[in-house]
Amino acid sequence: MSADNDQQAREQLIDLAAQFYDQFELGEIPHMSVPTRTKNNIEYDEDSHVWVYGDRESTRSANSVKGARKLLKAVYTIEFLAEQLDEDRSSTLRELYYLSESWDNNEAQFNDQDESNSMIEDLEIVSGVTREDFHMRPEESGATIMGPLHLREQTRRGEREIHCQKDVGEGGYQIPNNPDTIEFLDNDADFILAVETGGMRDRLVENGFDEEYNALIVHLKGQPARATRRIIKRLHDELDLPVTVFADGDPWSYRIYGSVAYGSIKSAHLSEYLATPEAQYIGIQPADIVEYELPTDPLSDSDINALESELEDPRFQTDYWEEQIELQLEIGKKSEQQSLAARGLDFVTDTYLPERLDEMGVL
Amino acid sequence: MSADNDQQAREQLIDLAAQFYDQFELGEIPHMSVPTRTKNNIEYDEDSHVWVYGDRESTRSANSVKGARKLLKAVYTIEFLAEQLDEDRSSTLRELYYLSESWDNNEAQFNDQDESNSMIEDLEIVSGVTREDFHMRPEESGATIMGPLHLREQTRRGEREIHCQKDVGEGGYQIPNNPDTIEFLDNDADFILAVETGGMRDRLVENGFDEEYNALIVHLKGQPARATRRIIKRLHDELDLPVTVFADGDPWSYRIYGSVAYGSIKSAHLSEYLATPEAQYIGIQPADIVEYELPTDPLSDSDINALESELEDPRFQTDYWEEQIELQLEIGKKSEQQSLAARGLDFVTDTYLPERLDEMGVL
Repeated sequence: MSADNDQQAREQLIDLAAQFYDQFELGEIPHMSVPTRTKNNIEYDEDSHVWVYGDRESTRSANSVKGARKLLKAVYTIEFLAEQLDEDRSSTLRELYYLSESWDNNEAQFNDQDESNSMIEDLEIVSGVTREDFHMRPEESGATIMGPLHLREQTRRGEREIHCQKDVGEGGYQIPNNPDTIEFLDNDADFILAVETGGMRDRLVENGFDEEYNALIVHLKGQPARATRRIIKRLHDELDLPVTVFADGDPWSYRIYGSVAYGSIKSAHLSEYLATPEAQYIGIQPADIVEYELPTDPLSDSDINALESELEDPRFQTDYWEEQIELQLEIGKKSEQQSLAARGLDFVTDTYLPERLDEMGVL
Repeated sequence: MSADNDQQAREQLIDLAAQFYDQFELGEIPHMSVPTRTKNNIEYDEDSHVWVYGDRESTRSANSVKGARKLLKAVYTIEFLAEQLDEDRSSTLRELYYLSESWDNNEAQFNDQDESNSMIEDLEIVSGVTREDFHMRPEESGATIMGPLHLREQTRRGEREIHCQKDVGEGGYQIPNNPDTIEFLDNDADFILAVETGGMRDRLVENGFDEEYNALIVHLKGQPARATRRIIKRLHDELDLPVTVFADGDPWSYRIYGSVAYGSIKSAHLSEYLATPEAQYIGIQPADIVEYELPTDPLSDSDINALESELEDPRFQTDYWEEQIELQLEIGKKSEQQSLAARGLDFVTDTYLPERLDEMGVL
């Protein structure tokens, strides 16, 4: 698959550069239009069940010096990416920024990393090719998987077949930067449990939850990397596994759930590639804080602001989330997932998760 | 080894509790003395070449309500830890804090996580047993290794034999929370290259640096976790491998080097367990910024303060560090490790690292 993808990505990039030539020939001022990436310009797509960009666009046009410089940078970046694909190399966003210092045209060099980052986003959106298919690696890698899954990873050094329980240490299988190099061989998994914190991930592994419940335990490590979201989506789509997200009971963790389920505003063009709209939130729910009398901390002002902003976010406008968020604002409290330890170290695996999975219809 | 260690750790804890009984019997007010954990109370140990605590002590004594409550908490914590070792369980610092809510004596419960964290530090210091041997897991796990090393990890689910190039994906081998469960089988490694950022770690792996130079590439992921520092120390001591640290050229990265080489002030009691005083700093050095004309950012006020405070830190009082830090204050600039990409994506592996390793006498 890799070589085909590379070829296709390369062609799409070159088509993009070719457009500028066509515009010149037609006597048009070269330009490129990209959707506006703001909260006001995302809308729910009924077919794919994810949030995508609306109709608003911004145009980079050579009718100003600033616009012309932007297009020049785009052309240099396209050339670099096409060469990178040709040579089967890869690089990070940060390397792209520094590399630009070696470009012969000073005007094409990036002034800061924000500029090169947003150039790559523009090119992703306009070409319809993901950053991974451009061979742009993220700065930080994905997290880990532990569970009954046997896979084959295509590495630069050949194929590796790995069982995510039998062939790994207690740390689990490290998800590579581009999980599309993975082929799923076979599995005994019943569902995916994506876990926010390392402490809770280790608790579940120590208690053998993956073995007893045939769960694939995916560590999110806070806000999940693209690689982590991508592999969750592929596990869901290709292996038909339900996805559950287990995080702290506070507004920042609901955003972590949101980034798994709905994608983020800055990457709405990738929702179909990264988001798993069928993902369900297992907890900690505000309702759990009340029901299980968990140890709590009071909501801070910034927590309250974040909850209120979630109430206005189209991605959280469901009966479920409105009820939970309003309950949380009412009780004025939040709880961490590890606060379940107040009921003993086995409460989470013996009682809490089985009860919630049953309620949600996953078990 | 594990069962023996557990038994020994358990005995040392119980001895500690027994001391209070002895003090009662002798008509003394129960008390416990621990070294003061501040910068003024660390000193260089000529024998072990690491920084250890000096003679200043603080005493927790039952001669006040506050002191008595502290000792009560210590006794409850000791009981919990002894039970945990007996059952071969483990837990995180955060779980300990929440668990204390289930203790029958309200006075023994912790008020916040800082309190339970520093209780575990006290017990580590006084008993001479490490947190890992108490089976207290860190919140976040260690990083990854890629290189010519074959090892055996003792997991709760049995032994796993893993080669850190042939049996892992591009993400590498995930270091477990307690690397003392690892036995090194055999290796073709010539040295260890501990790398600060994920982007650079991936660059080195993509360029095959571990294969070409027989390097064990250990990802530090910023400030390294205890597990990462521990495995570096064991690789150095047991396999006699030189350790080099490759980080950004700024004061925060020198602290990352410092935590590998000298240990941190808060864990000086563990220096012999975690620190590798022979570790050398490969770069980015202020001298490299000048020599290779790297892209730079200006030093911020907090960078300047951090550099000045390093000049006063006994751990950085060597000719090498004084020269480098003074040079950096003079040029007023810093560079990231990925800025080497301004010379091309292969410059780091073809030129920079081989030259530095040669200068340092590692190659």
